[in-house]
Amino acid sequence: LELVFLGTGAGVPSKGRNVSAIALQLLEERGATWLFDCGEATQHQILHTSIRPRRIEKIFITHLHGDHIFGLPGLLGSRSFQDGDTALTVYGPKGIRAFIETALSVSMTHVRYPLHIVEIEEGVIFEDEQFIVSAKKLAHGIPCFGYRIVEKDLPGPLLVERLKEMGIRPGPIYQQIKQGKTVVLEDGRVIDGSEFVGPPIPGRVVTVLGDTRFCEQSIELAKDADVLIHEATFSASEEKLAYDYFHATTAQAAEVAKRAGAKKLILTHISSRYQGTMCDELLAEAKAIFPHVEMAEDFASFSIPKKK
Amino acid sequence: LELVFLGTGAGVPSKGRNVSAIALQLLEERGATWLFDCGEATQHQILHTSIRPRRIEKIFITHLHGDHIFGLPGLLGSRSFQDGDTALTVYGPKGIRAFIETALSVSMTHVRYPLHIVEIEEGVIFEDEQFIVSAKKLAHGIPCFGYRIVEKDLPGPLLVERLKEMGIRPGPIYQQIKQGKTVVLEDGRVIDGSEFVGPPIPGRVVTVLGDTRFCEQSIELAKDADVLIHEATFSASEEKLAYDYFHATTAQAAEVAKRAGAKKLILTHISSRYQGTMCDELLAEAKAIFPHVEMAEDFASFSIPKKK
Ligand SMILES: [Zn+2]
Ligand SMILES: [Zn+2]
Repeated sequence: LELVFLGTGAGVPSKGRNVSAIALQLLEERGATWLFDCGEATQHQILHTSIRPRRIEKIFITHLHGDHIFGLPGLLGSRSFQDGDTALTVYGPKGIRAFIETALSVSMTHVRYPLHIVEIEEGVIFEDEQFIVSAKKLAHGIPCFGYRIVEKDLPGPLLVERLKEMGIRPGPIYQQIKQGKTVVLEDGRVIDGSEFVGPPIPGRVVTVLGDTRFCEQSIELAKDADVLIHEATFSASEEKLAYDYFHATTAQAAEVAKRAGAKKLILTHISSRYQGTMCDELLAEAKAIFPHVEMAEDFASFSIPKKK
Repeated sequence: LELVFLGTGAGVPSKGRNVSAIALQLLEERGATWLFDCGEATQHQILHTSIRPRRIEKIFITHLHGDHIFGLPGLLGSRSFQDGDTALTVYGPKGIRAFIETALSVSMTHVRYPLHIVEIEEGVIFEDEQFIVSAKKLAHGIPCFGYRIVEKDLPGPLLVERLKEMGIRPGPIYQQIKQGKTVVLEDGRVIDGSEFVGPPIPGRVVTVLGDTRFCEQSIELAKDADVLIHEATFSASEEKLAYDYFHATTAQAAEVAKRAGAKKLILTHISSRYQGTMCDELLAEAKAIFPHVEMAEDFASFSIPKKK
């Protein structure tokens, strides 16, 4: 798993930070990329990365403010133009369907892949054998979701040393043992495969929040997360402004990470009022409360390694 | 008058050329900027120019393909955010209203300036004391307009030398004479102001065409134009491909300029298949037919000086 920030600004694009979009690369896990929000010019940002639009399998929209969705029609169209032919699903609040369908139909954009649009409610919105994604409403004035992506536990490693001690040599039988099956060896011995498999490797948890005030739901979504991505539109000193505009401060983001027991916090959605060294101050404000924090920049990437 | 090309590519953005948008700067004439088409990330391109969104008075959309309109919602929203408070009018084919209104309402974008949307038919679509803009349908598969912007003739210059010969000294009276009024001088002489004003300065004509095959309407719109902006999606050798996709070649654009008696041709909407020196070849193809031709690049500007 790897996070690539495509847009880390707030409201309007600036020269340094584009409007919101974050890619979660699941190339090793499923050969796919998931996108969280898709502000205008997300497809332009992607041109400067190794991300392939045709690999984008899912797009999760946190809320319908323009700086989070106006890049969708262009990306959906270009993905088709660039030979994307596998299905793509867009998840988002009610209204996302009308926006996408109007933009595509007015512009006569006929995408050549199955495009699914899911207007979500709170709860589990996607689950397969690898991942569960659930959503909760945050506090942003208009419906705005935070997403919790939970990787299911991976099977434990085969305990090869122990097998060798038992005189069991590598071969097709290892595969059956790894699956925990009961196996009859050539010499007649019967062994229980599960005794030769280590404990399952815990899955990773990534929490991507939309724009929000400080709220309890953020803490629930971020519980024990390996990475929490939280907006930090304002500095710690602007708590009133943040509240009035339904946004959060650096200190509030850090407080959420701390209370949730998250392992790492990444700040994004930075107002263009903060430039240069002022961003160092923002980071320091958060660090005073929660030490494992980083500030996202456009094109910054963070890998989330498999656990042991 | 000055043209600034903001996007000169075709269909999808590339690193070198963004999707379509052209600014016509009328700063001296009316303190305003007019935009022709508004592909995705036009507001991003504008960040790298001296254009101020709040100065944008009119946006003329040639057709509703995504690469010509997907930057509209973001630009309209940001113009409001950046304190634009004067009226803005968007002209375009039927459907442009549904696109803009859906995008703005779904995203809860409430612009703080009067926004007018005019779904146009062929003919004169705007006229005031300075300019007449008319539109004609081109040949692009979906409704697509070309625009002819005609500056009205400017009053001739005051013939100051002749006035001085008559012993008439500079003063407020010059203003009345310049307006062609009949004036009684202090010494009792009566003079006809119109005899002291040179012939009117002919207005300039700029023709901005949308995507199109070679067609007669292009020639009519470009008649005697000072500048004709014509798409050249394909090289001269790809006439069949151009026809099939409702586009034009370099040679066809040049042929239109020649038959129309235009003074200058600027090629734009260049397919991303043409890179580097291939663009020089495209230019040479057009030059062989019509010598006064230039190739637009993103951020290239061309001034259209007042006539004498
Ligand atoms: Zn936002
Ligand atoms: Zn086009």
